[in-house]
Amino acid sequence: MSRPPDAAARRLMERLDLLAGFSDEPDALTRLYLSPAHAHAAAQVMEWMREAGMSARIDAVGNVVGRYEGRERSAPALLIGSHIDTVRQAGRYDGPLGVLVGIAAVEEVAARGIRPAAAIEVIAFGDEEGVRFPTTLSGSRALAGAFDPASLDMRDEDGVTLREALLHFGCDPSGIASLARRPEDVVGYVEVHIEQGPVLEREGLPVGVVTAIAGATRATTEVRGEPGHAGTVPMALRRDALAAAAEMVLAVEAVGKSEPDLVATVGRIAAAPGAVNVVAGRAEFTIDLRHPVDRRREAAFEEVGRRLSEIGRRRGVRAEMRLTHAAPAVPCSPWLIDALAAAVTAAGLPVRLLPSGAGHDAMALAPLCPIGMLFVRCRGGVSHNPAEAITAEDAGAALDVLLRLLLQLMDRTEPR
Amino acid sequence: MSRPPDAAARRLMERLDLLAGFSDEPDALTRLYLSPAHAHAAAQVMEWMREAGMSARIDAVGNVVGRYEGRERSAPALLIGSHIDTVRQAGRYDGPLGVLVGIAAVEEVAARGIRPAAAIEVIAFGDEEGVRFPTTLSGSRALAGAFDPASLDMRDEDGVTLREALLHFGCDPSGIASLARRPEDVVGYVEVHIEQGPVLEREGLPVGVVTAIAGATRATTEVRGEPGHAGTVPMALRRDALAAAAEMVLAVEAVGKSEPDLVATVGRIAAAPGAVNVVAGRAEFTIDLRHPVDRRREAAFEEVGRRLSEIGRRRGVRAEMRLTHAAPAVPCSPWLIDALAAAVTAAGLPVRLLPSGAGHDAMALAPLCPIGMLFVRCRGGVSHNPAEAITAEDAGAALDVLLRLLLQLMDRTEPR
Repeated sequence: MSRPPDAAARRLMERLDLLAGFSDEPDALTRLYLSPAHAHAAAQVMEWMREAGMSARIDAVGNVVGRYEGRERSAPALLIGSHIDTVRQAGRYDGPLGVLVGIAAVEEVAARGIRPAAAIEVIAFGDEEGVRFPTTLSGSRALAGAFDPASLDMRDEDGVTLREALLHFGCDPSGIASLARRPEDVVGYVEVHIEQGPVLEREGLPVGVVTAIAGATRATTEVRGEPGHAGTVPMALRRDALAAAAEMVLAVEAVGKSEPDLVATVGRIAAAPGAVNVVAGRAEFTIDLRHPVDRRREAAFEEVGRRLSEIGRRRGVRAEMRLTHAAPAVPCSPWLIDALAAAVTAAGLPVRLLPSGAGHDAMALAPLCPIGMLFVRCRGGVSHNPAEAITAEDAGAALDVLLRLLLQLMDRTEPR
Repeated sequence: MSRPPDAAARRLMERLDLLAGFSDEPDALTRLYLSPAHAHAAAQVMEWMREAGMSARIDAVGNVVGRYEGRERSAPALLIGSHIDTVRQAGRYDGPLGVLVGIAAVEEVAARGIRPAAAIEVIAFGDEEGVRFPTTLSGSRALAGAFDPASLDMRDEDGVTLREALLHFGCDPSGIASLARRPEDVVGYVEVHIEQGPVLEREGLPVGVVTAIAGATRATTEVRGEPGHAGTVPMALRRDALAAAAEMVLAVEAVGKSEPDLVATVGRIAAAPGAVNVVAGRAEFTIDLRHPVDRRREAAFEEVGRRLSEIGRRRGVRAEMRLTHAAPAVPCSPWLIDALAAAVTAAGLPVRLLPSGAGHDAMALAPLCPIGMLFVRCRGGVSHNPAEAITAEDAGAALDVLLRLLLQLMDRTEPR
């Protein structure tokens, strides 16, 4: 099988640049769910879908859905997707890459005159980042039948409800419930996404196959010691909440380093009263702990708890951990991991399996169907930032792998 | 020599309670420099001075000066003092104790019909805490000839200048320069003050003799690492500014513990961007380091710098320390330390020598004359807080020691 032409990778990069021009802000890329920029981007994506030989429409929750019809209408479709909403002052690849590489792959399938038995759909979800409304993954959840109707009454910071924003976008909120797909209609969901981490770059690899989206536990820890005068309380008589917190931060880090695929982060810390000349009586810090296997994450969180208690006892301070968030890991489907790995091998690339530490639309679709994800190397592991960057070569490699996956899956469902 | 009667200690405690009633706030003790509450407190203090047999006046900078005249007008006077301004929501002993115990001691001297050769002055300074204006120790500095005339143009938060506030208080700012005492007119300055620390309480001692007011070095340290996604950057690839800062906080603490009389404190810390799910790219924390001997403090600060650099190098982050404050130590006069220690012994108490980690009016008078300080045990080491507390017994012990000191100094200057 031949690679897609280099021209296809170049066009893919040009389209990514072009789509980045649809922004709600003049000097930065900010494209919030159901905003005018989102509408313009959706229209552009539909145009590209149609050029690629697909039908295209916007569904009741604002997703752009392109469909490349198969020979058999009842055969379960393969879904390819990602999102076209962004964070504020975003990069241009987080989301759009997965949508546009999907369109490019279908375009190549069509160009080769291939008509598979089952349809291929490319979906541009509208609300992955969850920036505008206090909800997230609305688009992918709707397809999985997990859209919460209560979220229609949620408001953005201007007081506009999600219902009003949908109506203004031209969507009919009453149609969201019927967006739910039946499991028997979907063979799987594949998402191509920038890695948002530095692993592939460090290892010199263009792509990686995701094993699971890591589960996450978040907690806030409050440390209570005894405030004191920085000049008059001898070191031996202190119960310094900030020094204790510092030791706890290092304990969290040590637990994070204790096994591969585990990450543990303290991203925020504060001390009270918080004056240069006062021994802190109170300190507070956050914990974020992730692992692709739930029981390993839970065991690590318990280990953090044990270490923090020990430090608190030894220093005469009280440490209280309050759980603020717990999301289970979402494993990718073994057969899609294998199929993606085979496609990577077929493309002449080494197979690197790695977990995803960030959340993706794939998470929301996992209850509906098997999911698979392909990560693409990004410069410096940077995302959610205008400095986000990938190379045309890596975009081409991702397109190559996705195309090989499509052809391989067609072979499987319709052996010729 | 007999102790002062218990009644004197009880009256001292009653006066401390009464003075606490003069406040600028209805439900808390807040008595700022040159405020109405300060004026009322000053009037009350003058009344008590006169009852004790002293002349009393308010000087050009707002100090209340009581004088118990000696037999020889030209003999150098002994000054006893502290301050009657407070922090916001203050306790009732920080400052007033030293003034009222001085008045009580003179009252006892007078009651015993003793007229020493040299005068004893009791001074209630008006601006030790430095809360109202961006200046501090104005009153004691004026006596030492170190009042900065430029501070007359400084404004409080209502825009009132120090000059205007002095005039409104009934003071003549043009007279401040002539408040400077000549060294040959002053034999020494003695200040009784609550410890503001827990040492005496822990050791079960009512009083302690201060060896020096510790010097202080303050710095802000900025740590620059690399921000990252808490889920996607593996532990081994992180340059986490907050984890590095935590290790540095522990290094500061370890240096503080490395020798007696040294204290080192990190009271404030922050990380940026400061989100639960982001590896911090930047962190900042303060350092406060104090020791009664300057070169030991300087050596300790250098050691902190070395350790922080080592941590930064090892973790691949940059740590930059910026000096924000450096004040040399002010040693107490050996002869006043000895004289106070002798008075403590004469009072039947063990002698505990200790440094002062906090600043006092005595600091400002050190360039003028020998200084000595007596610390009084306070509950929990608490100060600058309504919970500040001392016992009548300890107040009585301080009065006993001060009275013995006065009689001892008189004996020395006029052997009979």
